[in-house]
Amino acid sequence: MGQVVADISMSLDGYVAGPDPSLEDPLGKGGELLHEWVVETAAWRESHGRSGGEKNVDSEVVEEHVGAVGATIMGRHMFSGGSGGWEDDPRANGWWGDEPPFHHPVFVLTHHEREPLELTGTTFTFVTDGIESALEQARAAAGDKNVAVAGGGEAIDQYLRAGLVDQMQLHVAPVFLGGGTRLFDGHRDGGPAKLEADRVVQSPAGVAHLRYRLRQQR
Amino acid sequence: MGQVVADISMSLDGYVAGPDPSLEDPLGKGGELLHEWVVETAAWRESHGRSGGEKNVDSEVVEEHVGAVGATIMGRHMFSGGSGGWEDDPRANGWWGDEPPFHHPVFVLTHHEREPLELTGTTFTFVTDGIESALEQARAAAGDKNVAVAGGGEAIDQYLRAGLVDQMQLHVAPVFLGGGTRLFDGHRDGGPAKLEADRVVQSPAGVAHLRYRLRQQR
Repeated sequence: MGQVVADISMSLDGYVAGPDPSLEDPLGKGGELLHEWVVETAAWRESHGRSGGEKNVDSEVVEEHVGAVGATIMGRHMFSGGSGGWEDDPRANGWWGDEPPFHHPVFVLTHHEREPLELTGTTFTFVTDGIESALEQARAAAGDKNVAVAGGGEAIDQYLRAGLVDQMQLHVAPVFLGGGTRLFDGHRDGGPAKLEADRVVQSPAGVAHLRYRLRQQR
Repeated sequence: MGQVVADISMSLDGYVAGPDPSLEDPLGKGGELLHEWVVETAAWRESHGRSGGEKNVDSEVVEEHVGAVGATIMGRHMFSGGSGGWEDDPRANGWWGDEPPFHHPVFVLTHHEREPLELTGTTFTFVTDGIESALEQARAAAGDKNVAVAGGGEAIDQYLRAGLVDQMQLHVAPVFLGGGTRLFDGHRDGGPAKLEADRVVQSPAGVAHLRYRLRQQR
């Protein structure tokens, strides 16, 4: 069985999106700075149907993660690109366009029922009965491959707090955002917890790729 | 002239101290987990007059920093060990005992005037006229060596926001604290800012030592 992997870019001050997200600026003010490193990589460009890009250690980190994923779980804001309500419009393809970069099944956490959305290479399934149901469906879809909890911060935080994440990779970008959505919201009930650090990779783009193994509570 | 260096341990969720600090528990609940890595090092033990300890990459990181520092600035809570008021008691030597580990002049940011406190190898000078005055005095005391802004989070945040820090080193411990004092308080007026990443060091203790050069605004 594959692992449940949370993988997200974070600013040095702990934000995974900047303040004031909107349809025009779905990552919030400055939020695109978190992802500058990844859009330069050959691996990211390939998954988005583009050629070129840097074949560096950043690209290897992306390729390693993306290549091992068989299904993705995301929150409604990540599906809809930050706009409230859009994900519930059955005509909308969401933020990801007609040919999303996933190339595997994606499960969207939402409170609004909606028929699955089949696009080229990716089917979005909308899950209204909770994070465990989404994980069960994603596991079935992923087979032996990993399930990625892709974001946003709230979705990852929910899975972390439920003890359902096997591995977490944080790409710490050399950026202060000064506001926005924090990955870790500080409302842990269990008190302090130690993690098992797995790997640290220094990036030519100034990003620190930090990977941790989390204790399984299942 | 030396550099102004901020150097502090932080949890993965961005805290430099745990919740509910007290005289008995000056680092707050779980706060000691942030510093487990450093107290194991030979370099830390030597500066505290002890023998033994690990001579590993963590110890080298400590030694490199400590060896370059000629004066330290700290906030009143760091001087007093988390207890409000104690730093203003002229009989008190503060948290650091009769033989503090600094072995160079220390400048304490406070609102209460107090005569300098001379202890073995370290004189604490209490600065009531602001962070720039403290820096000026620390620079004069440090000569060609660095000035360390040692903590707590509030003191570092003040110097960062004033653009007075040349280099920042964060020791990211593999720990969730879930609450406490955040290093970056999120009230940047200047909006998003990029930093220049300098170095990433992976520690055998699971800590990621992240070092950044900051643009000088002076």
